[in-house]
Amino acid sequence: MKTAIYPGSFDPITKGHLNIIERAAKIFDVVVVCVMVNSDKKNPLFSLEERLHLINKVVGELPNVRVETFSGLLAEYAKRHEPAVIVKGLRAVSDFESEFQMALINRKINPNLDTFFLTASEQYTYLSSSVVKELARYGADLSGLLPEQIVDDVLEKTRNRG
Amino acid sequence: MKTAIYPGSFDPITKGHLNIIERAAKIFDVVVVCVMVNSDKKNPLFSLEERLHLINKVVGELPNVRVETFSGLLAEYAKRHEPAVIVKGLRAVSDFESEFQMALINRKINPNLDTFFLTASEQYTYLSSSVVKELARYGADLSGLLPEQIVDDVLEKTRNRG
Amino acid sequence: MKTAIYPGSFDPITKGHLNIIERAAKIFDVVVVCVMVNSDKKNPLFSLEERLHLINKVVGELPNVRVETFSGLLAEYAKRHEPAVIVKGLRAVSDFESEFQMALINRKINPNLDTFFLTASEQYTYLSSSVVKELARYGADLSGLLPEQIVDDVLEKTRNRG
Amino acid sequence: MKTAIYPGSFDPITKGHLNIIERAAKIFDVVVVCVMVNSDKKNPLFSLEERLHLINKVVGELPNVRVETFSGLLAEYAKRHEPAVIVKGLRAVSDFESEFQMALINRKINPNLDTFFLTASEQYTYLSSSVVKELARYGADLSGLLPEQIVDDVLEKTRNRG
Amino acid sequence: MKTAIYPGSFDPITKGHLNIIERAAKIFDVVVVCVMVNSDKKNPLFSLEERLHLINKVVGELPNVRVETFSGLLAEYAKRHEPAVIVKGLRAVSDFESEFQMALINRKINPNLDTFFLTASEQYTYLSSSVVKELARYGADLSGLLPEQIVDDVLEKTRNRG
Amino acid sequence: MKTAIYPGSFDPITKGHLNIIERAAKIFDVVVVCVMVNSDKKNPLFSLEERLHLINKVVGELPNVRVETFSGLLAEYAKRHEPAVIVKGLRAVSDFESEFQMALINRKINPNLDTFFLTASEQYTYLSSSVVKELARYGADLSGLLPEQIVDDVLEKTRNRG
Repeated sequence: MKTAIYPGSFDPITKGHLNIIERAAKIFDVVVVCVMVNSDKKNPLFSLEERLHLINKVVGELPNVRVETFSGLLAEYAKRHEPAVIVKGLRAVSDFESEFQMALINRKINPNLDTFFLTASEQYTYLSSSVVKELARYGADLSGLLPEQIVDDVLEKTRNRG
Repeated sequence: MKTAIYPGSFDPITKGHLNIIERAAKIFDVVVVCVMVNSDKKNPLFSLEERLHLINKVVGELPNVRVETFSGLLAEYAKRHEPAVIVKGLRAVSDFESEFQMALINRKINPNLDTFFLTASEQYTYLSSSVVKELARYGADLSGLLPEQIVDDVLEKTRNRG
Repeated sequence: MKTAIYPGSFDPITKGHLNIIERAAKIFDVVVVCVMVNSDKKNPLFSLEERLHLINKVVGELPNVRVETFSGLLAEYAKRHEPAVIVKGLRAVSDFESEFQMALINRKINPNLDTFFLTASEQYTYLSSSVVKELARYGADLSGLLPEQIVDDVLEKTRNRG
Repeated sequence: MKTAIYPGSFDPITKGHLNIIERAAKIFDVVVVCVMVNSDKKNPLFSLEERLHLINKVVGELPNVRVETFSGLLAEYAKRHEPAVIVKGLRAVSDFESEFQMALINRKINPNLDTFFLTASEQYTYLSSSVVKELARYGADLSGLLPEQIVDDVLEKTRNRG
Repeated sequence: MKTAIYPGSFDPITKGHLNIIERAAKIFDVVVVCVMVNSDKKNPLFSLEERLHLINKVVGELPNVRVETFSGLLAEYAKRHEPAVIVKGLRAVSDFESEFQMALINRKINPNLDTFFLTASEQYTYLSSSVVKELARYGADLSGLLPEQIVDDVLEKTRNRG
Repeated sequence: MKTAIYPGSFDPITKGHLNIIERAAKIFDVVVVCVMVNSDKKNPLFSLEERLHLINKVVGELPNVRVETFSGLLAEYAKRHEPAVIVKGLRAVSDFESEFQMALINRKINPNLDTFFLTASEQYTYLSSSVVKELARYGADLSGLLPEQIVDDVLEKTRNRG
């Protein structure tokens, strides 16, 4: 059973993320959406629990997708799921460079661990969680950027944050 | 049964290619090395038949790897193997741009067809069939660049070409 | 009266080109689509006259768009239209580098001549005349890639070329 | 009347900024230098009022250039000035990627809003407000980097900051 | 006597740094490893004194390598060592852009000062002090990343930091 | 005695080339301008002998610069001059990628052989032999692009070529 691990912050999950998850779910037996508990990212909009809740709302009907959290080294985490690969979405050259570096590091730590890159659909080229949060802050229309199920959650949260 | 299609000219197959094939073969049920008959590439060093022969020498012991040829649109060809993905190796930013474009075009023609990118192992970053041929022409040492089984074939061919 | 010069080979004009023309036509008083007679590009699919004809079919209803041809230095040609700028579409990093170089050269030759870059709409990121011709050769669906008015011309021409 | 909006932090305005403003002012009827009140940029060297003052000192003799401030979404702000385009300077590949993303987002929010990119003159390739501030801190010569009118303001401010 | 100045934070020195130092030491009469006291980098793992100590442990047997510290402008510092060049390692495109900018700025301040770039050996492409610290934090194996002499120092320091 | 080998086609030598040569000549004991006899570049404007003649005209007064030709592998050629490095000029990201690859290949063939990259002065960013030839063909002003001593040679040659 081949597993694809899709790591990220997902603060919040976007349509771009969902696009990658759906495409990975067609090819791999299981896709594990892995919310990394990254001590470096300060001041997330959503707490870890909220992020898990939002992802579950969105991927709930995909039978072979699971959601997990992990802190530590992704390369160690992946050992629990072997045979597994990491799946990442690529949007731009700058993504490519840092992701390429991460893939080499992960393979150094865990030589069995490969990273498969998918190119984001072109309509999601500009899309990131940061962009969504910036737009939400100014009350812009988020449909087309966020999965329907969570648009209201993001708008409400943003209003409360001010 | 999930199939990975690995397209290329393979004139000749290098250790970099083999590295991608071996890694794809760990994850996918079948890997089809697909030698594209590309009318644009003039003046190959090896004929199509010779290239197939060299690849088979190299991947012969990998049970789930097959070698095929195809002319035409890769996106159409992939339909024969569905569910299938294309697998490509990425070495550098310039690879990324043209491959990204190809992946989008292939998905436009065949919306079921995704491209998965693998990053080449760092020791193969500099490696391409063109580099091998250039080095062979000047009698440089090709071990480390070519699979052992075909080093002599490439040297002999290059000598004859002069 | 401010003029935008939009230079290119247009072999043939694509929806990506048209997108840039339409957007420039909203801002500039006149847009001159300038088909460069480039001695280096060998073996075009369409003759210069045919390319002009196809462009005119496509932009015929845009009142402030004209079509011209020119051989020689674009920076000299632009002097006829001063005050004028060159308009170019950018799709990718590799476009950026060569276009950036061209813009600097043009400004060196003609210090009054600036180049304004527009980013292609994301659905045209993958689109170029070469891609269209490659797809046409294999009978792929060209709607969405070419302006409606010229789809048949391109298909017919490609069939005749074989 | 065609308006070009030139947004930025301008902390402080450099000769590179001025170069873009002058070139835009030749082509557009009005250029609005728009100092964005960006809550994210902490700890600017100059207050918003000071930055406006410095820009006005520099562009005061350009008849069709105005200076404004705005907080919020640039794409909304631009509606006040329609028909308008955003003008940005491009210096390097990394500029290109983030600016390209911003241009797509702005067009998503406001489909009428296009971004026109100008390439900075080659002598300003290395120039940014951050570089100027770093150099000022160590007492380097700022002529050639800053418009004459504000060199003393920047040096004095930097000395006071220590 | 030609001097190469190799500036950096070296928090801590890695095998990638050492690789550049050794290669520069073969060509230049003297290599000065210059630990920049950069007020912007907050919260280093090692103090300035500790970093100097670790570098000296590693380069102690290279006869023509010296270690110094400096705060201020590198371009001014270099004047003490004329005729001197700056030596930097390049790993990726993003390195290239910012280093290119720094080189132009340094030459603007000090026209005698050139920057020579060396490409890191491919096995160090993924390597940076930040990566080492991240891996150390999770107890990953650091051999191959750090010079032997300092592996224990880094592990101990990281444990104490928690 | 440290030698810098500066390889290229030099068809013809430009002010950008000269800028690199002069800067290398300040640091290295000897600079060998090495005109590569590359069988792939077809149809040069100047014959090998003419190119040597033009370079000698330009560098004749630099006491530590020599001009040579070589066909074959640069990495082998460099052995004659050990201890030697290759010197290359970098202008843009696309230069960087292919030059980086060449540097790794050369080090693979000859582990003693390093490549040192210099960034071109910003006023030569746009400059290449191809650009000069293109501009010469249309009678553009070549001062500022070519060393004074050879402007007439290039203009005359271009006129004869038609």
